[in-house]
Amino acid sequence: MKLSNLFIVLFCTFVAKAQVNSDSAMIKRFFDRELSKGQCYDNLKELCKGYGKRLSGSPIAAGAVEWSYNKMKSYGFDNIYKQEVMVPHWVRGVKEKATYRKSDTSKVERVAVCALGGSIGCKIEGAVIEVNSFEVLKALGKEKVKGKIIFFNRPMDDTNINTFGAYSGAVNQRSRGANEASFMGASGVIVRSMSLGLNRFPHTGAMMRYTDSVPKIPACAISTMDAEKLSSDLSKNSKLKFALEMSSEWLPDTLSHNVICEIKGIEFPQEIIVFGGHLDAWDMAEGAHDDGAGVVQCLEALRLFKELGIRPKRTLRCVFFMNEENGMKGGLKYAEEAKKKNEKTILALESDEGGFTPRGFSFDASGDTLKRLINYKRFFEPYYMSDFHEGGGGTDISPLKDQGTVLMDLNPDTQRYFDFHHAATDVFQSVNKRELELGAAGIASMIYLIDKYGL
Amino acid sequence: MKLSNLFIVLFCTFVAKAQVNSDSAMIKRFFDRELSKGQCYDNLKELCKGYGKRLSGSPIAAGAVEWSYNKMKSYGFDNIYKQEVMVPHWVRGVKEKATYRKSDTSKVERVAVCALGGSIGCKIEGAVIEVNSFEVLKALGKEKVKGKIIFFNRPMDDTNINTFGAYSGAVNQRSRGANEASFMGASGVIVRSMSLGLNRFPHTGAMMRYTDSVPKIPACAISTMDAEKLSSDLSKNSKLKFALEMSSEWLPDTLSHNVICEIKGIEFPQEIIVFGGHLDAWDMAEGAHDDGAGVVQCLEALRLFKELGIRPKRTLRCVFFMNEENGMKGGLKYAEEAKKKNEKTILALESDEGGFTPRGFSFDASGDTLKRLINYKRFFEPYYMSDFHEGGGGTDISPLKDQGTVLMDLNPDTQRYFDFHHAATDVFQSVNKRELELGAAGIASMIYLIDKYGL
Repeated sequence: MKLSNLFIVLFCTFVAKAQVNSDSAMIKRFFDRELSKGQCYDNLKELCKGYGKRLSGSPIAAGAVEWSYNKMKSYGFDNIYKQEVMVPHWVRGVKEKATYRKSDTSKVERVAVCALGGSIGCKIEGAVIEVNSFEVLKALGKEKVKGKIIFFNRPMDDTNINTFGAYSGAVNQRSRGANEASFMGASGVIVRSMSLGLNRFPHTGAMMRYTDSVPKIPACAISTMDAEKLSSDLSKNSKLKFALEMSSEWLPDTLSHNVICEIKGIEFPQEIIVFGGHLDAWDMAEGAHDDGAGVVQCLEALRLFKELGIRPKRTLRCVFFMNEENGMKGGLKYAEEAKKKNEKTILALESDEGGFTPRGFSFDASGDTLKRLINYKRFFEPYYMSDFHEGGGGTDISPLKDQGTVLMDLNPDTQRYFDFHHAATDVFQSVNKRELELGAAGIASMIYLIDKYGL
Repeated sequence: MKLSNLFIVLFCTFVAKAQVNSDSAMIKRFFDRELSKGQCYDNLKELCKGYGKRLSGSPIAAGAVEWSYNKMKSYGFDNIYKQEVMVPHWVRGVKEKATYRKSDTSKVERVAVCALGGSIGCKIEGAVIEVNSFEVLKALGKEKVKGKIIFFNRPMDDTNINTFGAYSGAVNQRSRGANEASFMGASGVIVRSMSLGLNRFPHTGAMMRYTDSVPKIPACAISTMDAEKLSSDLSKNSKLKFALEMSSEWLPDTLSHNVICEIKGIEFPQEIIVFGGHLDAWDMAEGAHDDGAGVVQCLEALRLFKELGIRPKRTLRCVFFMNEENGMKGGLKYAEEAKKKNEKTILALESDEGGFTPRGFSFDASGDTLKRLINYKRFFEPYYMSDFHEGGGGTDISPLKDQGTVLMDLNPDTQRYFDFHHAATDVFQSVNKRELELGAAGIASMIYLIDKYGL
C-alpha cells in the first residue's frame, strides 16, 4: 500500500470512530436528560387522571385531543395540527350485571362482567355451554347450541414467554366469538378474559363488527378467576342458568382527530420520520400502559430534540393516533392523507406495548436497511436494549407500509402487560417512571440515528 | 481425512447437537412447569403475609425460620436442617417522630422518618447543616458542626442505568454517616433515602456499628421528597430546628438459624452446588423483593428437580441465609461450617436483587470456567435472559470465595428496585407472578447445566 493510501484508510477509520463516539455521546445526552429531567411521566399523569376513559367518540376522548393539542403547543414545535377523522362511537352504558345460581336452591352468584367493545346491550338468561375453540363449537351442531350462551374458555398459554404470542393464540375468541356463536344460533357469549394467570379483573377489547348475515348477540368478558369458577360450577351442574344484563349501545359515528406535531428538517424536510402511539383508550380505567405510555414517550422524544437544541435534517413528526382500539380509523386516515399529499415517509415507529423497561426494537425492513438498523444495536446496549430483530410494525403505522415506509416498534418487557391490558388495573400508578423514561429516550435515540444517516 | 475419521467427526457433531437439543428441552420443561404450575408466588405470599417484618433476632424472624423449615419438609427433600447462628438484635421501637418549623411563627411540619438499622434511640432537637459528602462535612470544621444535626443529601444518580451503581454511589452516607458526623461533633444525622427519583417513603438500611472512639449519635432516613423540601426550607432559614425522637435500641445477640435443604447427588454427592437468598428482611414492610423473592425462587428451583423427577449427579443445596441485612452472620456461619466439614462447594448462586424479570447471570469466575458459563447463554436466550457477564457474587455467598467456589448472581431488571428497597412499599403485591417465576426457572436451568457438566 502506498503511504498516501494508508493515510486515507487511517483517516477514514479515525473519522468513523469519532462519529460512533459522538453518536454515543449524543445518545447518552438523551438518556441523561430524560432520566434526570424528563416530563413524560408528569404528562402521563395529566392524561390519565384528566382523560382516563378516552374511548373513541366520547367527550373524554375529545378532551384528550384538546389536551394533546395544547400540550404540543406549549412545547412550541414548528407545526401542530389536528387531523379530522370519523370514528365509531360505542358506549358501554351504566348497567353491566351477571348472575347465576349453582343450583336451583343455591344463593345467587354475582360475576363481574364487562361488555366487549362493540357488543349490543341485552337482558338475557340461558343455559351455558363451555367450549375452547370454534371447532368444538361447530361440532356441537346448531340444535344443541340454539338459544344457549356460549362460554369461550380457552386460556392464554402461560408457558409462552412471548406474552403477545400467548395473546394471539387466544384472542380470536374475543374478536370472532360472537359472530361464530350467533351463526350457530346462540343467544349470547361469555369470553374468558385475555389475561395470563388468574386474576379477578374482566378485560374488555374489540370484537369484530357483527356480520349482517347473523343476528347480533351480546358478548361479555369475565375474569380468568371467574372463568375457572364458572367452569367448575358447570361441571357440577350443566343446566345452570346465566343471566346477563348490559346497556351498551352504538351511537352514530363521530368526528374526532389525530393530533400531530413536528419539527421541520433543515436539510431534507420532505423526508418524514413518523413516531407515535394511540391516544384513544378503553373505558375500563385510564389507558396508562395502553397507550398513554406510547403517546407521551413519542411526544417526549420530539421534546428532547427541542430541549437539547438538535435541529434534525429530516422532518420529525409525532402522531397521536385516534381509534386504534376499535376501528383503526386514525391510522388509516393518516396514511390516506400522507398518500394524497405524496409525502415521503421514510420511517414510522410505534410504541404500543406498554410503558415497561424497553428491551429493543423490531423492524419491518429487509436487506441492507434491516442490517443497518440491527447494527445500531451497539448504541443501545449500554441501556440494556439489545433485542433488535426483524418483525413487527404496529397497528396504526401498518397502513404506511404500502408507501414504502420502513416500520419499527419499540419492544418493552411485556411480562406484566396482560395484567393491565384493557382492564380496570391500567392506571397511571401501574407505570414506573424510569421504565417509561427509558423508552422515551430510546425512541429519541433511534430517531436521531435515522435522521442523521437516513435509511 | 480417512472415511473412519470423517465418521467419528460426524458422529461427535451429531452427539453434541443432540445433547444441546436435550438440554434445551429440559430447560423448556423447567420454564413450562414453573409458568403453568409454579408454587413460588404462593410461597412468597405466605412468607410475606405471615412473617413480614422478619428482622434478625425478632420473634417474626424465628417464625419465618419455622415456616421455611416446615415448607422444606413438606417437599420431602433428602436432608433438611437448621444451622444455628447468633445474630444481632436491634429493634426499631414504637416511636419515630420528626418535626420542624420553617420559622419561629410557622406551623409545625411533620416529617416521616425511620431509624437507620442500628441507630440508638433519642430525643434531640438542633439546627441542621446540609452536606453532600464527607469532604464537605470535614471542611466545615468541628466548631461549626458541634451539636448540629448533619443532613446528608446527596441523591442517587438518576442517570445511572445501573441502579445498583447509583446505590453504591450514595450509600456511604447511610452506612458511615453517623460515625463521620459524630467524629466531627454532631448530635444526630438525617440521611436522604437511598431511592431514585422523588417519592414519599423513607428507606431504612444498615449503618455501620458505632466505632468506640466516638459518641453514639442517632441516625434516621427521610424520603427523597422530604429531603428536597427540607433542603429548600433550610435555604430560606438556615437556623430552623429539627426535632427527632426515636425509641430504637439494641438487645443482646440472639440465636437464629440458616435454613437448609438438599437433594443428594447420585454420582458426585460430595460436590455441592449451593443456591440461596436471605430470609431476614427489614422491618418496614414484608421483604417481598428483598429478599423473599430470592428465597422462594431458590426453594422453587430445588422443588422443580423433585417434581420433574430429575436426580442430580451432584448435591443440590438450597440455603435460606439469616441476617444478610444487618450483620451477614448467616453467610459467614455457613462458610465457616462448610470449611470445617471440608466441603467441596463447586458453585454458589445468589438471588438478591428483587423478583423482577430476569435478564441474565453474572459470574465471579475466570478463564475457561467463565467462558463455559458465558457460553450457556445460548440456552437462556429463548427466555430473554441474554445478559451473561463477569462480575458479582452476592453478600451471603461471598465468604465461600476463599474455598475456591465459583460465585454467581441472578440478575433481574432493576429499574424499579429502589422504589421498594427497605421501604414500606416492599410488599407482596409489588411482585409480579410471571417475573418471579421466570427467575425461579432460570435458576433451576442454570443449576441443571452446572450439575450435568460440572465446572
